Amino acid sequence: MGVVIPLGENKNKQASVKPLVDLTSSGMDRVNQLILSKAGSDVQMIPEVANHLISSGGKRLRPMLTLASAAMFGYQGDSDVKLATSVEFMHTATLLHDDVVDESDLRRGKSTARIIWGNQASVLVGDFLLGQAFKMMVEVGSLDALDVLATAASVIAEGEVLQLSVAKNMETTEDDYLQVIRAKTAALFAAASEVGPIIANADRAGRNALKSYGMNLGLAFQLVDDVLDYGGKAADLGKNVGDDFREGKITLPVILAYRRGTQEERQFWRDAIEGGETDAAQLEKALGLISKYGSLGDTIQRALHYGTIARDALAPLPESAWKDALLEVIDFCVARIN
Amino acid sequence: MGVVIPLGENKNKQASVKPLVDLTSSGMDRVNQLILSKAGSDVQMIPEVANHLISSGGKRLRPMLTLASAAMFGYQGDSDVKLATSVEFMHTATLLHDDVVDESDLRRGKSTARIIWGNQASVLVGDFLLGQAFKMMVEVGSLDALDVLATAASVIAEGEVLQLSVAKNMETTEDDYLQVIRAKTAALFAAASEVGPIIANADRAGRNALKSYGMNLGLAFQLVDDVLDYGGKAADLGKNVGDDFREGKITLPVILAYRRGTQEERQFWRDAIEGGETDAAQLEKALGLISKYGSLGDTIQRALHYGTIARDALAPLPESAWKDALLEVIDFCVARIN
Repeated sequence: MGVVIPLGENKNKQASVKPLVDLTSSGMDRVNQLILSKAGSDVQMIPEVANHLISSGGKRLRPMLTLASAAMFGYQGDSDVKLATSVEFMHTATLLHDDVVDESDLRRGKSTARIIWGNQASVLVGDFLLGQAFKMMVEVGSLDALDVLATAASVIAEGEVLQLSVAKNMETTEDDYLQVIRAKTAALFAAASEVGPIIANADRAGRNALKSYGMNLGLAFQLVDDVLDYGGKAADLGKNVGDDFREGKITLPVILAYRRGTQEERQFWRDAIEGGETDAAQLEKALGLISKYGSLGDTIQRALHYGTIARDALAPLPESAWKDALLEVIDFCVARIN
Repeated sequence: MGVVIPLGENKNKQASVKPLVDLTSSGMDRVNQLILSKAGSDVQMIPEVANHLISSGGKRLRPMLTLASAAMFGYQGDSDVKLATSVEFMHTATLLHDDVVDESDLRRGKSTARIIWGNQASVLVGDFLLGQAFKMMVEVGSLDALDVLATAASVIAEGEVLQLSVAKNMETTEDDYLQVIRAKTAALFAAASEVGPIIANADRAGRNALKSYGMNLGLAFQLVDDVLDYGGKAADLGKNVGDDFREGKITLPVILAYRRGTQEERQFWRDAIEGGETDAAQLEKALGLISKYGSLGDTIQRALHYGTIARDALAPLPESAWKDALLEVIDFCVARIN
């Protein structure tokens, strides 16, 4: 999809997550060791299921956010590694449960755990990882960090239930949709970023800056993900164009095309999303309507809007390599489109 | 099943949970209010699903243990109510996830949430309640109590996965089985009882006494539950005789009958539990073999053994109405058989 993206301050180079990866590499080595150790159990199925997902090539953006947001405020210690690992476990637990809830067969191009080990193992290993995440947070001993992460756990689950309630309902508004992605995606980005300044004993302004950065980065990230589902290539994504369509998921590209469409086009969307008519021909038509109404470009505009808020959230903080790396991640998230 | 049960010190009266219910009644009123409030959400499906299970008539034994074990050490304050509610939410979340894992249709005589709202809602509302439980624990602010309960959450999930791995395997030993029930049932009883002395600032001996009491009470409780499945009445239990048999669950009555059986009888158990041949005639035969080898009576003997350990755990503590009520609960748990 030839969408032209105006990038923030990095117009002339390809924005990359590499500066963040480089800066956090020694911390992430320790996170990866801790992941392996805490996903271990004498019950053999637990490391099998956990490692299947953990080793499947996610970017580990969330734990990097925790490490960077602590380092930015001069944190010295090892609680950042424990909290970063907790954040990744919360994310992994959510993915395991999501696959059961969505009845997904593929994630990042591999069979999901529920296909290999069954729904039962996915539910229970998710619960185990959540328990391990809380144990690590307790070891860190910061009640403020615990509060932020426990609240995120509730909010994420609440957002997933909300998504169930709006599922396959074409009258879902952009606001409903935003409420869902704020809870199910952005809340963990926000918590991952806020616990850094907390353990570094930053002031309230620093905490709020990173929380706002994470929240808005998460919104931009999810919006772009939803665009990619209608415009990316399976090889890049580990999923196929139109997965969301076939699952009847309502995302912003669909909401915009529906609301801007004719009576007849709206009927098409209802038959597809609510009625399950989602074969190849229907997908072709859906892509045509999404293109006709500029839904992908406008969804990207929304992502850029939140990206700008994330950028401004960090503006008052002193310049540093950490800050630059976090700013570049905003552009990277949107630049994934190309 | 005419099994004669020698009760501990209450040989001449019917042991009852009533003293514990009476002593904790004002605290439990506050627990019940907090349950309703913390299971609330703007996402309508959450209170619907949560209240379906919460209002379905469980005894709320676990939160009563928390209230009593705090009161026993002179606790004054409201953290006991928050922790008791957290414990009940952890239990409810486990039940919601268990019903999905076991594909159960009935619990306490009512359709399970997954039958009414689907597996998806059961998984996600369970996650929400777990998040709310952790938020309440964080409000209490005791890192020791958080540690005990977060550890219990991990252990419970680990035990459930272990149960999956031994499922439908007739070579499961009594030790394997004990490891499962220790994790999936007794760990939460132990944690519920240990957090009381923690918030009351009791000494290490007091904590350990209540932890041991809870752990052994939980083992006795689960063993009796497993006996009831082969000997109780559906009206008392909200489930039918033989549910475990039909689900191919391996419990101690089955383990004992299998290990004590002839070659031909062992083949029968393998066909039933591993092969799924569990119709009415097979259940009849299973009940006959369980009776032939005295498996129910011997399972009850095991329960009495753990009950005695629970009793001795409390022995060094000063006499009080609270202590008497907790001791009577041990006998009550076993006396449910009649």
